[in-house]
Amino acid sequence: MATIPDTAAQLQSLVTAEGELHLSIAQVAVPQPKEDQVLVQVGAAPINPSDLGLLFGGADMTAAVASGTPDSPIVRAPISPPVLAALAGRVGQSLAVGNEGAGVVVAAGSSPAAQALLGRTVALLGGAMYSQYRCVHVSQCLVLPEGTTAEEGASCFVNPLTALGMVGTMRLEGHTALVHTAAASNLGQMLNKLCLADGVPLVNIVRKSEQAELLRSQGAEHVCNSSEPTFMADLTDALVATGATIAFDAIGGGRLAGQILSCMEAAANATAKEYSRYGSTTHKQLYIYGGLDRGPTELVRNFGMAWGIGGWLLMPFLQRVGPEEAEHLRERVAAEITTTFASSYTARVSLTGALTLDAIADYGRQATGSKYLVTPNA
Amino acid sequence: MATIPDTAAQLQSLVTAEGELHLSIAQVAVPQPKEDQVLVQVGAAPINPSDLGLLFGGADMTAAVASGTPDSPIVRAPISPPVLAALAGRVGQSLAVGNEGAGVVVAAGSSPAAQALLGRTVALLGGAMYSQYRCVHVSQCLVLPEGTTAEEGASCFVNPLTALGMVGTMRLEGHTALVHTAAASNLGQMLNKLCLADGVPLVNIVRKSEQAELLRSQGAEHVCNSSEPTFMADLTDALVATGATIAFDAIGGGRLAGQILSCMEAAANATAKEYSRYGSTTHKQLYIYGGLDRGPTELVRNFGMAWGIGGWLLMPFLQRVGPEEAEHLRERVAAEITTTFASSYTARVSLTGALTLDAIADYGRQATGSKYLVTPNA
Repeated sequence: MATIPDTAAQLQSLVTAEGELHLSIAQVAVPQPKEDQVLVQVGAAPINPSDLGLLFGGADMTAAVASGTPDSPIVRAPISPPVLAALAGRVGQSLAVGNEGAGVVVAAGSSPAAQALLGRTVALLGGAMYSQYRCVHVSQCLVLPEGTTAEEGASCFVNPLTALGMVGTMRLEGHTALVHTAAASNLGQMLNKLCLADGVPLVNIVRKSEQAELLRSQGAEHVCNSSEPTFMADLTDALVATGATIAFDAIGGGRLAGQILSCMEAAANATAKEYSRYGSTTHKQLYIYGGLDRGPTELVRNFGMAWGIGGWLLMPFLQRVGPEEAEHLRERVAAEITTTFASSYTARVSLTGALTLDAIADYGRQATGSKYLVTPNA
Repeated sequence: MATIPDTAAQLQSLVTAEGELHLSIAQVAVPQPKEDQVLVQVGAAPINPSDLGLLFGGADMTAAVASGTPDSPIVRAPISPPVLAALAGRVGQSLAVGNEGAGVVVAAGSSPAAQALLGRTVALLGGAMYSQYRCVHVSQCLVLPEGTTAEEGASCFVNPLTALGMVGTMRLEGHTALVHTAAASNLGQMLNKLCLADGVPLVNIVRKSEQAELLRSQGAEHVCNSSEPTFMADLTDALVATGATIAFDAIGGGRLAGQILSCMEAAANATAKEYSRYGSTTHKQLYIYGGLDRGPTELVRNFGMAWGIGGWLLMPFLQRVGPEEAEHLRERVAAEITTTFASSYTARVSLTGALTLDAIADYGRQATGSKYLVTPNA
């Protein structure tokens, strides 16, 4: 095991009062773990869509400029006044970024629980993972099966628990099948594997034929391409076949959310026995969990009165099911991290590599099929 | 008590397979009440916004043409193909209309419960109230206090129970104050009286200054005019003052629903202590219960992730609270029908009078301050 340095590198995001984003690599003190803490040398941390809000602060990254040195790059980008107004709470604080990651425990506090983790590879959800070292409470560590690498364990929380949370929400709210948009994403492929493993009917919505092919090659039965002229009819057929009355939407803006509800209504009415003046009594629910399209959500309300749309986040779901169930879900992820919940990456970058304009332009697009892994100690 | 005829008049609405709406007055048999039934001579039945869907069948009433005779008028209006497609379940059936009304029990079945209602004025929610006679089960009758007229009791259900349902939903879902749009409507004025009586903070949204004046003259404390340039700031102030985090929206289309959520978020953040990257954790809920604007609902999603929008209807609310609580609510309405739950009307029409093009154009506008009462036996 290497010597632990006094200071180490950490990626930070700062929003200035003047409306500028500064991304930089800071040297921060490496803490001594207290009794119930461990120090993790971070091996790998993914760049998830849910990291980009904190990282970019809503700045216009197409106008980003690079300065600094290769070892200490600085990226600056302008933030528009209305966006800046909403960020008042973070102005002037240089924030560490990175929701999740994995690494090896290189130092531990005196408690037996902490000592037991020495040398183990653990996954963490705790923020500031784009750092060379993270000191956390033992209870934050998800211990990975022996032989699992940090890269294999880097994405144990956000995508796996989100996929489990979607299926869990579906069950909690009395639905038996679900719809997912942007379904060829890393998360979407994982949800497809999970639904196949658990026998949950899933309707995948994509917008390109190669994405449909990819999901079908992974066993998906229902894939609808929103770019096809037959999309609404195809989706309605898939909804009749599966009975899906809940959808999870990564896109948010535009008309797709309303179209899904319309097709659910059409599917409900296709099997209805009598006319109901307020539309079908089947409750149709759609949760927006992402914002790939930041534009307005436009609902053409032709789906009766039994419907709901709302925001969905992982943390409130975990609070809703309670700590015991949340722990069961985490244990399942650890056990299946190289199978059901395996992630794949298209690029690996160091902390400084994550701050090149080329890399930012690439992972900032959130394009399906492109997924970055930060390796802070590589 | 007058002799009961064998047949009597009933307003009916028919959608033809060719896409035409036919409104007419049919002569239908007057039934003999069975053991637990009573026959009610309908004295008065309101035309509520919730009656217009069944009545008009989505037809273009601006293109309506009148024919028939003064005693037997027929109104025809075209229905566009997409609307017609959604009406498949009712094509070819001449449907009776009128959700609620009140009248005198003029005949009763043999059971003591039925006999006890002879001569009483009762309110009914049962459809087909634009009829001279309605035969219903005794359990459908809400017996009004002695001395109450049919006109006073005509609107016992839709508006009073909707107002009670809004306050009830607010409580069930953990909110302590509420927002209402189109707040100077008959329903809105009733909700204002109810909230004042029950000490529930209410934020009224109107779009004209005279509507604001009307509500203020009736004791409303918080009235925001969406036509004012300061609307968003005014609304945010009222939301901070009341803590309202649930809204009931009669309008549906356009940007107002999203603006309410935005102002709720601004109000939540005005009192928040730290920056949260996903917006405030305060759940913000908006229910669309009407469709004064049938256009798309446009949500500019600048209100974080803790939000929900959905359809709201009275009947699912009553099912949700259960029969015992629903009965309590009905009894309260009967007891306060000339005070808290009193309605006022701007026009009274006979069954044939309801089918003149002038009347249709007037009540079809659903204009605030205009409210029709049908008096089938006048």
